[in-house]
Amino acid sequence: MRKPKRSVLKLVLAYDGTGFRGWARQPGQRTVQGVVEEALGRILGEVPRLSVAGRTDAGVHAEGQVVSFGSQEDPERVARAVNGMLGPEVAVLRASRAPEGFDARHSATAREYRYRIRVVAAPDPFTARNVWHRPGSYRLGKMRAAARLLEGEHDFTSFSRRAPGVTPVRRLDRLPVRRVGPELVIGARADGFLHQMVRSLVGTLVAVGEGAMEPEQMTEVLEARDRAAAGPVAPPVGLTLVGVRYGVRPGAKR
Amino acid sequence: MRKPKRSVLKLVLAYDGTGFRGWARQPGQRTVQGVVEEALGRILGEVPRLSVAGRTDAGVHAEGQVVSFGSQEDPERVARAVNGMLGPEVAVLRASRAPEGFDARHSATAREYRYRIRVVAAPDPFTARNVWHRPGSYRLGKMRAAARLLEGEHDFTSFSRRAPGVTPVRRLDRLPVRRVGPELVIGARADGFLHQMVRSLVGTLVAVGEGAMEPEQMTEVLEARDRAAAGPVAPPVGLTLVGVRYGVRPGAKR
Repeated sequence: MRKPKRSVLKLVLAYDGTGFRGWARQPGQRTVQGVVEEALGRILGEVPRLSVAGRTDAGVHAEGQVVSFGSQEDPERVARAVNGMLGPEVAVLRASRAPEGFDARHSATAREYRYRIRVVAAPDPFTARNVWHRPGSYRLGKMRAAARLLEGEHDFTSFSRRAPGVTPVRRLDRLPVRRVGPELVIGARADGFLHQMVRSLVGTLVAVGEGAMEPEQMTEVLEARDRAAAGPVAPPVGLTLVGVRYGVRPGAKR
Repeated sequence: MRKPKRSVLKLVLAYDGTGFRGWARQPGQRTVQGVVEEALGRILGEVPRLSVAGRTDAGVHAEGQVVSFGSQEDPERVARAVNGMLGPEVAVLRASRAPEGFDARHSATAREYRYRIRVVAAPDPFTARNVWHRPGSYRLGKMRAAARLLEGEHDFTSFSRRAPGVTPVRRLDRLPVRRVGPELVIGARADGFLHQMVRSLVGTLVAVGEGAMEPEQMTEVLEARDRAAAGPVAPPVGLTLVGVRYGVRPGAKR
């Protein structure tokens, strides 16, 4: 077997975000990127430059985060070693060699998140770390009607924290709202998300569900391009990055 | 509405056993009974004498533990107050008034446990607190054959820690072994369980699954009436008391 000259490793990660100040490395803070890069540094002998598909916020979880970095190392060995050091808080679910040019962030064509809300009165010891407990009765039909108005390509300035130099236009493919046993589960798939965009969409749908807003307001909220027009931001506890898509785009290497 | 003269409250509890030295109150130890009785004492003005259906060991969880105690208090108020003090680590899932004579322990006709084993290589951040991670390939058919030989009424001395004055004969109704995605899930329902009996049954089935024991040995293990004849005891992390049955028995009040 001849090793390729230049090789990219792709890791699919899960993590419980509770104990982290989000993905991105920050001086003096415990972050997912920080502990993963440190572990990889010990395995590889040098700290790799990680590309990441979704820069999750403090307290946000992942079941299908994707990172990539240049390395000749055997993927299985890297997975085992990282899991031995960081599991079960951070886990490598899959490790594979990716084609030259693959970049976890720039090659991604869609990100998918899921937000879980426990709506019954009793707390649940086994989901408290990744489900928002907000008991109440929700107007599910109204939430779905609001979600339909938010889907599509829009300027999502009203649903994000302002970030200079970033286009606020995103294509929100799907925003399904489902009842699953004691929970409301809200999915969100888009080509990309602005800062706090999913939590802002969820907080607004919750406001609709609770009767504080009406579905018909969604169009004017979008048009306002003003953070104050949307509902409150839902807390990070219920949010999980569930997966990243790498579809073929014209001219893009996979 | 006239309040009954003497009234019994029944609570169905869930708890994450990770932070507790088991159910039973012990001096100087944090136990589930200890924190629940303390909370009820603050709500009721006096500490009640709790009857419990299953005295779970250190680190063992519950999704359907049942306790009872004499009280005239409104069940819903008790549930809300306990959840406010102890949730989400300990939660009251349901609270109701039970007929006079009901006793969570003595009225129970069956207890049901579930043991979860994650058998794939990667750890899982979201189930690490209540699933045993033991990667490997298991001989599922052999495990089921062994379980069939253990079901029924037997002297389970080989599968328990000796407890003086307790009959070692139990009726093990069901011991199903299923594959559910990345997990093996072993159920266990019996009229009652001896100390460490479920974990000892699971450890023995795992030994069969891994090839260290054969199903045909189960009969001699039972007949040996010797702890050393069975497989090792599985760790508490994967074990959960899922429910308690209160069927009608002749002469028993419900």
